[in-house]
Amino acid sequence: MRIRYEDMKGVFEEILLSRGLSAHDAALGAKIFADNSLCGVLSHGVNRFPRVIEYIDKGGIDVKSECEVVFTFGPFERWNCHRGFGPLNAAKAMERAIEISKKAGVGVVALGNNNHWMRGGTYAEMASSAGSIGICWSNTMPNMPSWGARNPTIGNNPLCIAVPRKSGAPFLLDMAISQYSYGKLERERLAGRTLPYPGGFDEEGNLTSDPSLIEKSRRLLPMGYWKGSGLSIALDLLVTLLSEGLSVKEIGELETEIGLSQIMIALDPEKFGIDDLDSRVSSTLEYVKSATVAEGFKEISYPGEGLARARKENEENGIEVVDEVWDRILSFRC
Amino acid sequence: MRIRYEDMKGVFEEILLSRGLSAHDAALGAKIFADNSLCGVLSHGVNRFPRVIEYIDKGGIDVKSECEVVFTFGPFERWNCHRGFGPLNAAKAMERAIEISKKAGVGVVALGNNNHWMRGGTYAEMASSAGSIGICWSNTMPNMPSWGARNPTIGNNPLCIAVPRKSGAPFLLDMAISQYSYGKLERERLAGRTLPYPGGFDEEGNLTSDPSLIEKSRRLLPMGYWKGSGLSIALDLLVTLLSEGLSVKEIGELETEIGLSQIMIALDPEKFGIDDLDSRVSSTLEYVKSATVAEGFKEISYPGEGLARARKENEENGIEVVDEVWDRILSFRC
Repeated sequence: MRIRYEDMKGVFEEILLSRGLSAHDAALGAKIFADNSLCGVLSHGVNRFPRVIEYIDKGGIDVKSECEVVFTFGPFERWNCHRGFGPLNAAKAMERAIEISKKAGVGVVALGNNNHWMRGGTYAEMASSAGSIGICWSNTMPNMPSWGARNPTIGNNPLCIAVPRKSGAPFLLDMAISQYSYGKLERERLAGRTLPYPGGFDEEGNLTSDPSLIEKSRRLLPMGYWKGSGLSIALDLLVTLLSEGLSVKEIGELETEIGLSQIMIALDPEKFGIDDLDSRVSSTLEYVKSATVAEGFKEISYPGEGLARARKENEENGIEVVDEVWDRILSFRC
Repeated sequence: MRIRYEDMKGVFEEILLSRGLSAHDAALGAKIFADNSLCGVLSHGVNRFPRVIEYIDKGGIDVKSECEVVFTFGPFERWNCHRGFGPLNAAKAMERAIEISKKAGVGVVALGNNNHWMRGGTYAEMASSAGSIGICWSNTMPNMPSWGARNPTIGNNPLCIAVPRKSGAPFLLDMAISQYSYGKLERERLAGRTLPYPGGFDEEGNLTSDPSLIEKSRRLLPMGYWKGSGLSIALDLLVTLLSEGLSVKEIGELETEIGLSQIMIALDPEKFGIDDLDSRVSSTLEYVKSATVAEGFKEISYPGEGLARARKENEENGIEVVDEVWDRILSFRC
């Protein structure tokens, strides 16, 4: 079925309110999950919402816990999020980074002890919507072998970079460091398809495009082989040091993927004397799009365009949701 | 033949002095090229030195031009490098970023109008040698098709991240965004080898590991396919905006690869209250190394270890240089 954005957000809000969130937090949390669904990222939107509510109901997330500012230095703040509601804390941290950037040029909030932030692009886009450049990344549990290893010791740590644009879709890079997510492997396996490019190793250490073999071996491939492996370690080191939060290794010692470390950076172009941002960004993005389209491709798009298109379509037609998922969500209403 | 580090540096210094560089600049320039050779990156060290001198002799680089500070804002400086001596300007910019970071916690210098910086790791390592975290990147001419394109509109922009370590090799990620460099393609072709993994497309748009087919099509593959393509665009947007320098597109409009944009970031961990940096970094890196080694690999190493090993070996045994290259270099002495 198709659910209209406003209706979906209303249902999410009602459910979050019933779980004890404040009016402000329920509205913000509902907006994040509905927005993620609107732009087509159902895995971190409507499809994930039931699991999040179950987790709250089991006491796995204390929705009333508040982030604590444990260190400040100039435009930098370090927060301890006490394993509260991940997306809510991440959004509040980027709000704060943007607020700082409007005065100090740049604002940085490093979050330790948070939970999964769902779609990382949410927070980078908050900055670009406010006219700022947004950069954020998170670590994860160890879910990918480093280059040359059999067993997972690095994270598929997502990295997001958003650059504002007055006309046209904003630039939004939102990428995890694994070539494919486990979600993608599952979808392709269920559809009986192989991956377009090798996504990991089988149990004998051969690169493979068969999703089921990778699900079995748990040997996901980092993007760019040794390069993504190194970038993943770099992102973990930086976020762990700045947040004084848990590293990928330390998250792996817990019973499940909790207590993640994240960082939110907002940069106000005006404060840096950049007065031609829009024309410079457009010049680069239009140049990229001006190339000759390669064999087997329909068009050349830059990161963020596909998301903007999905958002527009779903705004017009409603968001496609599997009936059982929506029924399950409605059952959470008290 | 093998040349000792000090001898190589001395010859470089003598030649640079003879080309009109100040005593300070000749010593710093010689150190950069000798250090790059010492750690095994000959392509940006001794093997590149003759081309650089030829370029200076032809007037392509004005070695006496000084970088100009055109904008400052808090711990941020923007420099116009007037197309001077790339590695020298890059080193001075990172020196300045480190100096700022020791007071302000973070220091950022964005360079427009510079020339090729040679080995990017040089500058990130300057920060880690000073106990700071170093991050830097550069753009390039358009030398790689974006994802879905036939012709090059993005750069293989190098990104470097260094994290200091008291014992053991410092962490140093130094990666260009293309899966392989053209230098690597040439070496593998001359050795009659194919690439270990696909490195680009042939002229019909098929992924290939044959270096000669990629050299012919000029269709290098970005690391991680669409992911590296997006990351390359992000790095170009950020460095171009912050430096107000030329974008990949604009560099492509010049007759050769000049006028590059670069950024140097240094971050002093002490100012951010990070008092357990060493144990945290070691914990993560030792964890990565503790994994089971995969089939076909001898060991698991983290970015920076190979460099440190090459440096130690070459310190002991001298740097292996092709006779003709060294003869050519000696011929530059007046």
